[in-house]
Amino acid sequence: MPMLNFTYHNPVKIVFGRGSIAQLPRLVPADAKILMIYGGGSIKRNGVYDQVIASLKRNPPAEFNGIEPNPRYETCLKAVEQVKAEGFDFLLGVGGGSSLDAAKFIAAASVYKGKNPWDMMTNWARVPADSLPVGCVLTLPATGSEMNGGAVVNREETKEKLFFNSPHSFPRFSILDPEATYTLPSRQTANGVVDAFIHTTEQYLTFPADAPLQDRQAEAILLTLIEEGPKALAEPRNYDVRANLMWCATQALNGLIGCGVPQDWATHALGHELTALYGIDHAQSLAVVLPGMLRHQRERKRAKLLQYAERVWGIVAGTLRVPQPGPEEEDARIAQAIERTEEFFRSLGVGTRLSDYDIPAEAVELVASRLEKRGVKLGEHGDLEKKSIVEILALRV
Amino acid sequence: MPMLNFTYHNPVKIVFGRGSIAQLPRLVPADAKILMIYGGGSIKRNGVYDQVIASLKRNPPAEFNGIEPNPRYETCLKAVEQVKAEGFDFLLGVGGGSSLDAAKFIAAASVYKGKNPWDMMTNWARVPADSLPVGCVLTLPATGSEMNGGAVVNREETKEKLFFNSPHSFPRFSILDPEATYTLPSRQTANGVVDAFIHTTEQYLTFPADAPLQDRQAEAILLTLIEEGPKALAEPRNYDVRANLMWCATQALNGLIGCGVPQDWATHALGHELTALYGIDHAQSLAVVLPGMLRHQRERKRAKLLQYAERVWGIVAGTLRVPQPGPEEEDARIAQAIERTEEFFRSLGVGTRLSDYDIPAEAVELVASRLEKRGVKLGEHGDLEKKSIVEILALRV
Repeated sequence: MPMLNFTYHNPVKIVFGRGSIAQLPRLVPADAKILMIYGGGSIKRNGVYDQVIASLKRNPPAEFNGIEPNPRYETCLKAVEQVKAEGFDFLLGVGGGSSLDAAKFIAAASVYKGKNPWDMMTNWARVPADSLPVGCVLTLPATGSEMNGGAVVNREETKEKLFFNSPHSFPRFSILDPEATYTLPSRQTANGVVDAFIHTTEQYLTFPADAPLQDRQAEAILLTLIEEGPKALAEPRNYDVRANLMWCATQALNGLIGCGVPQDWATHALGHELTALYGIDHAQSLAVVLPGMLRHQRERKRAKLLQYAERVWGIVAGTLRVPQPGPEEEDARIAQAIERTEEFFRSLGVGTRLSDYDIPAEAVELVASRLEKRGVKLGEHGDLEKKSIVEILALRV
Repeated sequence: MPMLNFTYHNPVKIVFGRGSIAQLPRLVPADAKILMIYGGGSIKRNGVYDQVIASLKRNPPAEFNGIEPNPRYETCLKAVEQVKAEGFDFLLGVGGGSSLDAAKFIAAASVYKGKNPWDMMTNWARVPADSLPVGCVLTLPATGSEMNGGAVVNREETKEKLFFNSPHSFPRFSILDPEATYTLPSRQTANGVVDAFIHTTEQYLTFPADAPLQDRQAEAILLTLIEEGPKALAEPRNYDVRANLMWCATQALNGLIGCGVPQDWATHALGHELTALYGIDHAQSLAVVLPGMLRHQRERKRAKLLQYAERVWGIVAGTLRVPQPGPEEEDARIAQAIERTEEFFRSLGVGTRLSDYDIPAEAVELVASRLEKRGVKLGEHGDLEKKSIVEILALRV
């Protein structure tokens, strides 16, 4: 298959490096009426809150806090009320992907013309056509939200975790200061590595599209995450390591590696259900699903899995115990690459089984039924049906 | 050295693929008064002109043609007069880097407040602070001009070849249709490969900055150019190959691989002088200079040259005839990598010696003197003085 036609347009201004929060006054419009959106207070402990407030002292932002780790629709709606009531015209998301996604959702919902902002997530015709401007200060590299137009939000009432993606929802700027990530708990650092890794595989482990540059750009991210991830856990205050992880996570989901190639995202679809139903972290849900997805889909992803085995894990023909070249030797290489992937996640402390999170076996049928009911077409061929989903999750009990 | 702080902001909308010229009416503002800027007529022979005119039939552009392969200041000024006299408010550059750069220069010069637009090239304080909007239709992948804010222009009168780089000069959009490159003469195809290759090495072959992702993104481009370049000469109508080269050339100079890393650009500075003085193609001038630059600077670029040898050319420790590990064996690997680079250029039909272009040995002293007179500080350390420039060029006679 030849490279697919594509449009790439990513107008986010990235301001990267030590001390870059101090550039906020130059990035925010001078007369903006700013509402700062953040989470549970980690930014108060790590000094980012103080840096933001200090840099904006001539135009102090109002605040909306309490965004949950998987931001809730119900919470976002409260912020929308505040935006409308007090006339804020610039939203500053400060934190990880949750605070950034919440800021994007609130910014779009505040100017949404329809009756029910949740429609932006469920109805493609109602994806945001407008938004208040948003700026971001990132403290947790993982979701790539700082450089894309997407937002994922959870609705408690219906236990749904859904997303939109709109060209109107790109942040105007995102500040990425690696020092802001020094104090992340290990679990969040590890989650970020896994999240960026699987954002990459969703755009890479599909079928060949004669796009060697995009393939190598994806492999560049995977190789760097494998190198730097463990270092970040061992040396949380190593600037270089934190900077590299931060830039990897951004590059993994800013659209670049997906240009002109098929994309999967089935692991995300299943993972979102697990998070919505059982509350496990996003990255945890992905680490559970991916090994099953790759094992189950290994024939259809065969060519790319062999390339992945060789270029990312160094598993080349002739190095395994099965010496005869042929399909069996290839199978062994693929199996080993998937094992290495799962081991990598586990080595970071991220569980890869439903049982690691005490999720009951009933989840298998429940997730599959929910996805079937929603009628979504999954996988790079858009044809993963309920039977396959059950089989994939059954591999992860 | 840790990764440098950086700002990355590239708002160009890329519309890539077969048939994408038909999207022009959606990309150009509906009421724009368009001046189309192009070169010597190759776009009339390859059908691109007809496609542009057909797609814009509801809002036909006026035309300014005759942009030279190294666009001349004197020619651009004529276009500026036409823009001002007739009130054009949108410039559409159609062609290779020369037409695109000319369009950007004309767009900036048309709204330039100073007396002499050439000051935009020589005085950093006068870099474009404004520009008419520009759109591009690319027909020759090479310069990366379609996705950056730079423009290179030649002044006949003084035999100067200089550039500006301004955030106001990013194209609003660039259309990249690989089919538009099918009829390129081999020389231009080869030049494009060399140009993109050396744009990449200028941002990669410096000194280590602990930026493994950027390194691998650069290597991704180099490896792909090495694979696809020869195929494009052998199969000029292979869509996949043309698409891959086109995307490589764009990625080589859109700012991404240069994020946070030291940059060199000395090869370009010397090459520009050779083009300005002797009229050789831009890529030819780079192919002449680079091998000399790398050999002369091999100690200062040592770590990156060893990485380049291994990752780009597969020259790993222990594979050469010099078996003892140590500095000598490393030297041999570096020497081989530089030889392979030069052979690659020659295999594409691009000469790598001054004598290949009948440039006299006097060029060595002349180029060095001109650069000294201009007082530019060259190289990733900003300290290449006249003596080194003479030595580098003397290696290329």
